[in-house]
Amino acid sequence: MQALVFRGGRVQVVNDYPDPQQKGDDVLIKVRRAGICATDLEIMRGYMDFTGVLGHEFVGEVLKGPKELMGKRVVGEINCVCGRCDMCQSGLSSHCRQRQVIGIAGHDGVFAEKVVLPRRNVHVLPDAVDDDRAVFVELLAAAYQIIKQAPIEPRAKVIVVGDGRLGLLTLQVLAQAAAPTNKVVLLGKHADKLMFAEKRGIQGILLEEMLLKPEWDIVIDCTGCAAGFTTACKLVRPRGRLVLKSTFAAGGDAVDLSPLVVNEVTVIGSRCGPFIDAINALAAEKVVTNGLITSRFKLADGAAALEKAAQSDQIKVVLDIA
Amino acid sequence: MQALVFRGGRVQVVNDYPDPQQKGDDVLIKVRRAGICATDLEIMRGYMDFTGVLGHEFVGEVLKGPKELMGKRVVGEINCVCGRCDMCQSGLSSHCRQRQVIGIAGHDGVFAEKVVLPRRNVHVLPDAVDDDRAVFVELLAAAYQIIKQAPIEPRAKVIVVGDGRLGLLTLQVLAQAAAPTNKVVLLGKHADKLMFAEKRGIQGILLEEMLLKPEWDIVIDCTGCAAGFTTACKLVRPRGRLVLKSTFAAGGDAVDLSPLVVNEVTVIGSRCGPFIDAINALAAEKVVTNGLITSRFKLADGAAALEKAAQSDQIKVVLDIA
Repeated sequence: MQALVFRGGRVQVVNDYPDPQQKGDDVLIKVRRAGICATDLEIMRGYMDFTGVLGHEFVGEVLKGPKELMGKRVVGEINCVCGRCDMCQSGLSSHCRQRQVIGIAGHDGVFAEKVVLPRRNVHVLPDAVDDDRAVFVELLAAAYQIIKQAPIEPRAKVIVVGDGRLGLLTLQVLAQAAAPTNKVVLLGKHADKLMFAEKRGIQGILLEEMLLKPEWDIVIDCTGCAAGFTTACKLVRPRGRLVLKSTFAAGGDAVDLSPLVVNEVTVIGSRCGPFIDAINALAAEKVVTNGLITSRFKLADGAAALEKAAQSDQIKVVLDIA
Repeated sequence: MQALVFRGGRVQVVNDYPDPQQKGDDVLIKVRRAGICATDLEIMRGYMDFTGVLGHEFVGEVLKGPKELMGKRVVGEINCVCGRCDMCQSGLSSHCRQRQVIGIAGHDGVFAEKVVLPRRNVHVLPDAVDDDRAVFVELLAAAYQIIKQAPIEPRAKVIVVGDGRLGLLTLQVLAQAAAPTNKVVLLGKHADKLMFAEKRGIQGILLEEMLLKPEWDIVIDCTGCAAGFTTACKLVRPRGRLVLKSTFAAGGDAVDLSPLVVNEVTVIGSRCGPFIDAINALAAEKVVTNGLITSRFKLADGAAALEKAAQSDQIKVVLDIA
């Protein structure tokens, strides 16, 4: 099959990549569309030492699997877990000690014509969630994880730092979860992206116009870079909470952690979230993704797609695979 | 008066430093003994951009103040607060927006013959807490803050990273707070310092002999350096808690924060704590400090004392002032 493969430190389209092999209760899925995520770009900089087919955000169609799934349009959770380790046994299977993560750790990803996933990872999509929405399920699930880990108290002031893909979804999740006494604001660098928030009744502020004072109860760092984390640290009030969503490869700029100690801030690392919440929100149009796909490429042009996704004017770049 | 002053990027003993001026309800205190802390050394590397008399750990004797304090042996809290800002009004006065911090920010410190402090900062010592114990009150209070911010659940495994001053006090606080189902361990680099833990029935492990696996429920970073924080990140289990105690100046080694996101760790910044708890514990000998003072200097030799305190074989270096 055709696949976009990262190996030897470079990305290439391989036309004769071996088809994925079904094991156990694996489901074989034909990938229809896939989204490029910041993590894919970080992997290309060495994050996780991954080698193989890139990609983990996708929508596809079941080719082989249990009867009730055959031919269905599906999305898939990215952690392939053992079900037996201490984490799995304590209800934290996304932290499985033996996990493989599609396109990230030990398991080929979705920038390919086909992918296999364990049955338990597969979610059938309702018709209301079309393919262009479905490629956002994984990322939106990660946004829902924020309000599970850092519930918003009455009167709390909440600021999302970073107006990229994740920021624009997170914002909508927070706005929904917020009470009338809450304040939710987006801080970003791009006037056009902030407009997306404004259209949804949420205030957007340009970084260059923002007074960086430690007065926000909850700060969500969706920037994916050390500079963004430093900005977030300057915004969180003493004893406030900073939710850290984005992973960045080691060896970047030095991060000064002393404000976290001085202000006794709680930093909450946050990763994958509940697919069901994301699918339901998209189906009910509680979260909108219109306008977030800024470029489309064929799988054969995957290398160009990854380059495009690294440009700051892009929001979501997708690969149309089948 | 004589004072150890940091200005122009260097430390010097000044023999004609102006006496501190009492304002409002300030208490004038003759400093008897003072302790050198990691923060003092960080300030000499540029932390907080502080200029003035260094030092914040001390025991002294009241020279001028309200009648009930006259001649009493006292210790003092380091945050001088306004009582009116949003933080003070919400019970978080140690985070006062207008605070001055003795020897750290905007207020001369205690490496001097005299110091002034607001009345509310001053605590009278019981006789059971002699001067050599009293110099540990401020640091021990910071250790008590840990169990306020990160209570130890039944069966939790707790590890203290760093066998310096703070680590050896923190360890004793945790051991007291722990239930029989808990495990408390000290990780350090110095066999002689680990022995201090072993003598108190607490397991000490040399860093070079430790398997760095993410299996600890609560990790307390008392190392004060980026390398220590990185070690702490490797030890905390998925969804575990990492208490960050030590401030280090910016511009050091790059810190890789991605494990915090991947493992959804909660990092809890922790600073000053309750003096009362520390004084009571020392008075009741629930926390012992015997053997922790490793060198003594006169104030006139303060520069040499600071150099000594930076050596890794030292635990607590004190200045005998009066």
